[in-house]
Amino acid sequence: MNAPFPPAEARRALIERHAPLIEAAIKAVSARAAWSPFKDSPSTKIHGPDKPVAGKAAFEAQLNRPFDLDLPGVIDRVGSEVSPFTGKALGITYPRCDPEALIAAGQTAWPDWRAADPELRLALCAEMAMRLYDANFEMAQAVMHVAGQSYTQAFSGSGPNALDRGIEALAYAAKAMRDVTRSARYERDFAGEAVSLDKTYVLVPRGIGLVICCASFPTWNAYPALFASLATGNPVILKPHPIAALPMAIVARECRRVLADFGFDPNLITLAVDTLAEPVAQVLVDHPAVQIVDFTGSPRYGGHLERTVTGKLLFTETAGVNTVVVESVADLDAAARAVARAASLFSAQMCTSPQVVYVTLALAEPFAAALVAQIDAIAEDPALAAGIMGAVQGEVSLKAVADVRGAVERRPGVRVLREAAPYAHPQFPQARTLTPLVLGVAGSAPDLYAEEHFGPVLFVVTMEADAAVAEATHLARTKGSISSYLYSTDEAFIDRSTPLYEQAGANLTINLTGAMWINFAAAYSDYHVSGLNPAGNACLADLAFVAARFRIVQRRRPTA
Amino acid sequence: MNAPFPPAEARRALIERHAPLIEAAIKAVSARAAWSPFKDSPSTKIHGPDKPVAGKAAFEAQLNRPFDLDLPGVIDRVGSEVSPFTGKALGITYPRCDPEALIAAGQTAWPDWRAADPELRLALCAEMAMRLYDANFEMAQAVMHVAGQSYTQAFSGSGPNALDRGIEALAYAAKAMRDVTRSARYERDFAGEAVSLDKTYVLVPRGIGLVICCASFPTWNAYPALFASLATGNPVILKPHPIAALPMAIVARECRRVLADFGFDPNLITLAVDTLAEPVAQVLVDHPAVQIVDFTGSPRYGGHLERTVTGKLLFTETAGVNTVVVESVADLDAAARAVARAASLFSAQMCTSPQVVYVTLALAEPFAAALVAQIDAIAEDPALAAGIMGAVQGEVSLKAVADVRGAVERRPGVRVLREAAPYAHPQFPQARTLTPLVLGVAGSAPDLYAEEHFGPVLFVVTMEADAAVAEATHLARTKGSISSYLYSTDEAFIDRSTPLYEQAGANLTINLTGAMWINFAAAYSDYHVSGLNPAGNACLADLAFVAARFRIVQRRRPTA
Repeated sequence: MNAPFPPAEARRALIERHAPLIEAAIKAVSARAAWSPFKDSPSTKIHGPDKPVAGKAAFEAQLNRPFDLDLPGVIDRVGSEVSPFTGKALGITYPRCDPEALIAAGQTAWPDWRAADPELRLALCAEMAMRLYDANFEMAQAVMHVAGQSYTQAFSGSGPNALDRGIEALAYAAKAMRDVTRSARYERDFAGEAVSLDKTYVLVPRGIGLVICCASFPTWNAYPALFASLATGNPVILKPHPIAALPMAIVARECRRVLADFGFDPNLITLAVDTLAEPVAQVLVDHPAVQIVDFTGSPRYGGHLERTVTGKLLFTETAGVNTVVVESVADLDAAARAVARAASLFSAQMCTSPQVVYVTLALAEPFAAALVAQIDAIAEDPALAAGIMGAVQGEVSLKAVADVRGAVERRPGVRVLREAAPYAHPQFPQARTLTPLVLGVAGSAPDLYAEEHFGPVLFVVTMEADAAVAEATHLARTKGSISSYLYSTDEAFIDRSTPLYEQAGANLTINLTGAMWINFAAAYSDYHVSGLNPAGNACLADLAFVAARFRIVQRRRPTA
Repeated sequence: MNAPFPPAEARRALIERHAPLIEAAIKAVSARAAWSPFKDSPSTKIHGPDKPVAGKAAFEAQLNRPFDLDLPGVIDRVGSEVSPFTGKALGITYPRCDPEALIAAGQTAWPDWRAADPELRLALCAEMAMRLYDANFEMAQAVMHVAGQSYTQAFSGSGPNALDRGIEALAYAAKAMRDVTRSARYERDFAGEAVSLDKTYVLVPRGIGLVICCASFPTWNAYPALFASLATGNPVILKPHPIAALPMAIVARECRRVLADFGFDPNLITLAVDTLAEPVAQVLVDHPAVQIVDFTGSPRYGGHLERTVTGKLLFTETAGVNTVVVESVADLDAAARAVARAASLFSAQMCTSPQVVYVTLALAEPFAAALVAQIDAIAEDPALAAGIMGAVQGEVSLKAVADVRGAVERRPGVRVLREAAPYAHPQFPQARTLTPLVLGVAGSAPDLYAEEHFGPVLFVVTMEADAAVAEATHLARTKGSISSYLYSTDEAFIDRSTPLYEQAGANLTINLTGAMWINFAAAYSDYHVSGLNPAGNACLADLAFVAARFRIVQRRRPTA
């Protein structure tokens, strides 16, 4: 092993500097109260006037230029990002690398990392999170212009909220690794002979971790996967979606700098940019050196991985059908507003967006009317729409909504309550926007809504409340669900409904209205994905998310 | 839910009674010093004169009779056990059940168990362990006469040592479940509005756990799997090897009694006895209700499961090639004796039995001579041989040794250092016995020893020590290894060797001689199977062994 550079002192200081953060995160995941080391508002009152300007300038300076990453095995440069806000190509090119070279480089970098004190690895991951927080105004611009998130959502949801998920994973990595004592004295009598053994327990990482990111919300699942694998000693290859590479390129840049600053080989984190025509994910998944796969994305490819990957750790988050059941409400407008906002947020391109709203016959008309009115109130206020809905990332989502609209034309029992339509973005006139299509459905019609439609479409289904819970939880069990919602003033109804949600592995939000987005999932407090239904097998975050990313090897010998 | 019978008071008392045991086990797995709540000697000085007699009587009373288990869906009765000691059929028949009926019964029993306080589930598992300890003299007879273990080994290795592995798994189950707070108050400001949510976190078990047991050492891996799945809320189906059903039938009998005694449906634990002609394992593995599979047995079927099972939790322990490297020794006879005893114990039918002994050229002649002398010393003393070697469970192991013997006939570079031969068992003249075949091999010959030969055969390979470590760790990486052994007086050699063992995921015992069996793996102290090589993916026991057997489902609602 090479002598560490900079000296061991800097590494020790880093462990000390971030120890309080790790401790606070461990306390937070135990107590599950609200906590974060970050501020999730982009307000200049918090960050000062310069950082937003500098972040935007950094993003703009990057446009139409090669992204500077000194990766191994570069074949050529590729890039095909188009801003959903401007409609223009970003013009950024990324090194496309030979997957074998990325793997070989990770393996070359591995021994020093594997041998490093786990506490140092935790501290370096914490340092990466801090650097990424520092770079978050640039990241917000990047996420806006590849994914279509609004500025505020890109700043918060793809910044601090996502980094919190990463630090949450670090907390569990710390707990799992600290759970293993590093040495023991074993003393016992065997057949009258006193035996004393000294035992050593070594944490041995599994192998290269592959992090396959989605296009619409790349950082939120990438940070926990990255930090969980890295902290437990594994090199990581980040595989961004080809139409949303910039956020992961920024992550790779910042994290590689941290590694280099503290004397580690930056190739512990590399970036595998590919193209839609020549995807590289499966090559990496199949490589024997890749031992951990974290996937976020489509149920189609996620399901393929779930059915085919064996002998490796696989963590998935795909999608499902999120439902709202409205049995009774204390304040109809407040409930309708809560659902309307959740259905409008990022034009329903979130894994927590509701898609089906079940309403009792008595409430059907007034609730649907209030829901449409609340969506209209957002859609007709361009500044509000821009802040909430942002842009639609891909044509595919426009098509998804159009397909649904076509399928219900003249279909008995289905009424169009609200047509989807673009709104005029106040800042980006070329923005690809779409406000929600709202359909009224007279009774169960799973052929219409039992699969995820990835775009702004909401089905308002009239159904008796217990039947609605039965169908909602059946959909969760069979199609997956990440967030389910229930409104009722009847405690007996709630009490008989919650076990059904539990058995379907559906995380449930009850009677939430007001300023908090009902589909906001807070790191350290809200578990995200239960692993009990087809929406994915990975929970953010629990011990199971980290405990198998490293293994334990022991040796023992008679006490000297 | 039915009113608990007996009353809740009895359940509370049970939790209190076993709480100190669980706490002590948690302390033990943290400190990893020597600890056990049991005595692992069958001595009447410890247990009194009556229990051994009663245990033997219970076993003998069971011979040639139907085993009484009130299982659901009984098709017929089957039984094909033959004692390796007497050569006679045990004549015990077991109910063979429709697998669908076992699964349906487990699912019917599930809701009360799922809803039970995790602390009660832990206490009930602890109670099962205590009842099994009480029944251990009967169990020892059962294990002897299905597996061929000697009386003392059957008592200790398949009794307290195995129960310790079970309680160790309970300790981790307790840690993982207690790590999840059951409720939290979340308070945070959103856009100037104070939001307060009450959150509830529910532990939800995954589904039916299937425990597939091996024939030669059935209880040792079954207990941890059984208790890990059961304590975390899952029903369990025990699938014994058809030629070694009795131990698991006793386990099912005792555990079902405990469940019934405390008002739970005994069908939470059922027994799926099958026949060699009509195996049932795959039917159960493939059933969607089975969500956890614990397998111990052959690399062939274990490898099949590892390559095909997706979407379920799979824990395996199969086998590998365990090696000894002898670089230099402080006391040649002591080292040779240690290896000889390990190679003789249970006629090498253990997952920790050494198969290949690498010796330097300088040591080759004296070490091989000492090794053979030590094995002879055991083999030629019938009482000692009976206590150490026991019997050979299956004809297949006699054939394995004969096949090796045939393959080396007239092979250049291979010398027969010691012929395998039966020893005369002092108590059971019909016992199927075989003392080790010892072969001297002049240099690397992986075609001879790179696969596990399941029987008493030892290859003594002359090789330079660093090359030997390289080959031994290569075998571990590629063929699997559960226990590796090293003898050296050169600390520099040890220091450069240990990283290779670590990277191969090979648990290493260095310079151990004396009364403790070098292949003894102590629960609470020794990790068993690293999961980093083909010998299996399940570590006994770590957090990863339990953390994913349950999942977490949450609900949240505004504070009242």
